[in-house]
Amino acid sequence: MQLLMIPGPTNMPREVLQALSLPAVGHRTPEFSEVIKEVTVSLKKIYHTKNDLFILTSSGTGAMEAAVANFVNQGDKVIVMENGNFGERWVKLNNSYGADVEVISGVWGEQADPEILKKRISADHGQEIKAVFVTHNETSTGVTNDLKALREALGEHPALFIVDAISGMAVSPLKVDEWNLDVVVSGSQKAFMIPPGLSFISVSPRAWAKSEQVTNPRFYFDLRAAAKSFEKSTTPYTPATCLILALRESLKLIEKEGLQNVYKRHQFYKQVIRTAAKALGLNLLTNEKSASCGVTAIKKPTAIDPQTIVKIMREKHGIIIAGGQNRLKGEIFRIGHLGYVSDNDLVVTIAALERTLLELGWSFQLGQGIQVVQELLQERMK
Amino acid sequence: MQLLMIPGPTNMPREVLQALSLPAVGHRTPEFSEVIKEVTVSLKKIYHTKNDLFILTSSGTGAMEAAVANFVNQGDKVIVMENGNFGERWVKLNNSYGADVEVISGVWGEQADPEILKKRISADHGQEIKAVFVTHNETSTGVTNDLKALREALGEHPALFIVDAISGMAVSPLKVDEWNLDVVVSGSQKAFMIPPGLSFISVSPRAWAKSEQVTNPRFYFDLRAAAKSFEKSTTPYTPATCLILALRESLKLIEKEGLQNVYKRHQFYKQVIRTAAKALGLNLLTNEKSASCGVTAIKKPTAIDPQTIVKIMREKHGIIIAGGQNRLKGEIFRIGHLGYVSDNDLVVTIAALERTLLELGWSFQLGQGIQVVQELLQERMK
Repeated sequence: MQLLMIPGPTNMPREVLQALSLPAVGHRTPEFSEVIKEVTVSLKKIYHTKNDLFILTSSGTGAMEAAVANFVNQGDKVIVMENGNFGERWVKLNNSYGADVEVISGVWGEQADPEILKKRISADHGQEIKAVFVTHNETSTGVTNDLKALREALGEHPALFIVDAISGMAVSPLKVDEWNLDVVVSGSQKAFMIPPGLSFISVSPRAWAKSEQVTNPRFYFDLRAAAKSFEKSTTPYTPATCLILALRESLKLIEKEGLQNVYKRHQFYKQVIRTAAKALGLNLLTNEKSASCGVTAIKKPTAIDPQTIVKIMREKHGIIIAGGQNRLKGEIFRIGHLGYVSDNDLVVTIAALERTLLELGWSFQLGQGIQVVQELLQERMK
Repeated sequence: MQLLMIPGPTNMPREVLQALSLPAVGHRTPEFSEVIKEVTVSLKKIYHTKNDLFILTSSGTGAMEAAVANFVNQGDKVIVMENGNFGERWVKLNNSYGADVEVISGVWGEQADPEILKKRISADHGQEIKAVFVTHNETSTGVTNDLKALREALGEHPALFIVDAISGMAVSPLKVDEWNLDVVVSGSQKAFMIPPGLSFISVSPRAWAKSEQVTNPRFYFDLRAAAKSFEKSTTPYTPATCLILALRESLKLIEKEGLQNVYKRHQFYKQVIRTAAKALGLNLLTNEKSASCGVTAIKKPTAIDPQTIVKIMREKHGIIIAGGQNRLKGEIFRIGHLGYVSDNDLVVTIAALERTLLELGWSFQLGQGIQVVQELLQERMK
């Protein structure tokens, strides 16, 4: 059995696994419509929104495509705040749809800078910018961007503010209505603790108004069809029923733990992993303020290929961690700590990392990582 | 617990349910790449093809969109052979993508006519037609079209031949290479006996050549990305891992039963349901030759609303059957008998149908439907 310590898919609670193996249900029954209603209400609580919210049967990228296909016209000027691999995905998606993309690139490993956005927006006297795309949690670098500050930088400008919150939702606070976020995308296999295959998207009234003028070809991801079906508490096409039943269970668990406690737990695990990595003499890619509560990026120990660390962790210790993506490939490795993670998972991960590093000739005292994990876990008990 | 007797989602075997509840696995591991390779090989056997074949995380409609987005350009003249609700979906999809759609409509409940297609094709001296879209099994009417004859009607014409085989694949024979089918779409929740959420699509070399000239915006369903990732036995975006593990189990079961036996079983169940319905004095929508082996459409008993039959079957007897769709709503009800169906499932379904019809005042002798079911089941044992 594998322990998943990647930034999604995540490990799953017993209640979720049990729901997945329930006998099949009809997707056009009153009973299943009740499930769709119930999970949508719960998802809106996590989104902190009264906006429309839809469940799509696709991985997160499908919902990202919906966010472009429904709200950006060919030729529209859009800004992408890019500071990692998933920021680049916004760029590629917008390019696919023929948008006039202006990329504001940031350093990979640092937060996107709201001041630069603010300056660019205030220079847009003709209000030519139609949308601003941002990433909540940049999975590839372990950075959580300051969404609130980025949205404030847009101010009263009429451009839509569109967020990829796939790996950040239910990890750290995200308030759709209070922060005025028009379109927000998330995915099932991250902090929602269920398998990949569902994505979620919220749509503000402002975004709906824009979508009426959008002429892109779209069908499976056409949110107008989703909205029409949702009036009857159903979906336009057959949904991944077993995943929706699993989602109902995971949402109950989140509600039981309390969203604030879920945030706190992730915050604490971030602290544990960062402190342990430093105790092992490793360098972190991100500073404390920018660091994600869901995934930690660790720079390669000098002369050791991070892909080798990933391989040994998997093959010898049964623990799946991630390497770097794109331009950070070969530069970092990443430990995910989101969703269904326990104290014990952190203990075994750091313990295995120690033995892996020792095998690879890294110089440190065996146990010095675990020691700080133990201290932090103990301290929290007080 | 519900017994699903709809044309998908279907009931699921124990092996599939068990696989669904396995702990999470990493999707970028060598182990999971092996699974992707293995299931792709098995799927190609069922497709009878050496063409490329991809697994998408979406319901069947997503793969239908891929079949349009990747192979039809805006303004392309395309023919849709429409004789039901899912034929209409091809029309809508092609319209969404700005194709010049010519619909050859057939009677709902009868097979699409290859002669009409042949005549239309032979009149296309300028070879303006770029693609012909057909439905293998029209779920809405319980008709299986004669794919082989339809393909022969296209002859040497260079138009692509694109098939929705979502509810027909692994129910009745479909030979992609022998019949020269360019693009063929199917879905997980039908005869593959796993939950909804995966779709499959095969692509011929001819179709690949065309796709290079296609300029539609596409990203999540861009099959070029799927092909590139498949070289490394992976997918471009996070796949629905648990469904792929379940698929592996269901493909093993199909292999064990033998594809020819799977076809025979479906053929027999069609005969049982049709004979029982007639014994109850009900009229069938389709004739024997056109009738689907996966779903049977039954005309409403005079003055009885078929939606009431569906409702009583569900609420009082725990059996989910389907009403009519689109223009057949209120005219028919449909019993699905595809995928994981047993003799016993047919017995209880016809038994419950008898009690439902009696409650609604239909005139017949209680037991006369079950009697023919018993006789047919007994006869097969000889």
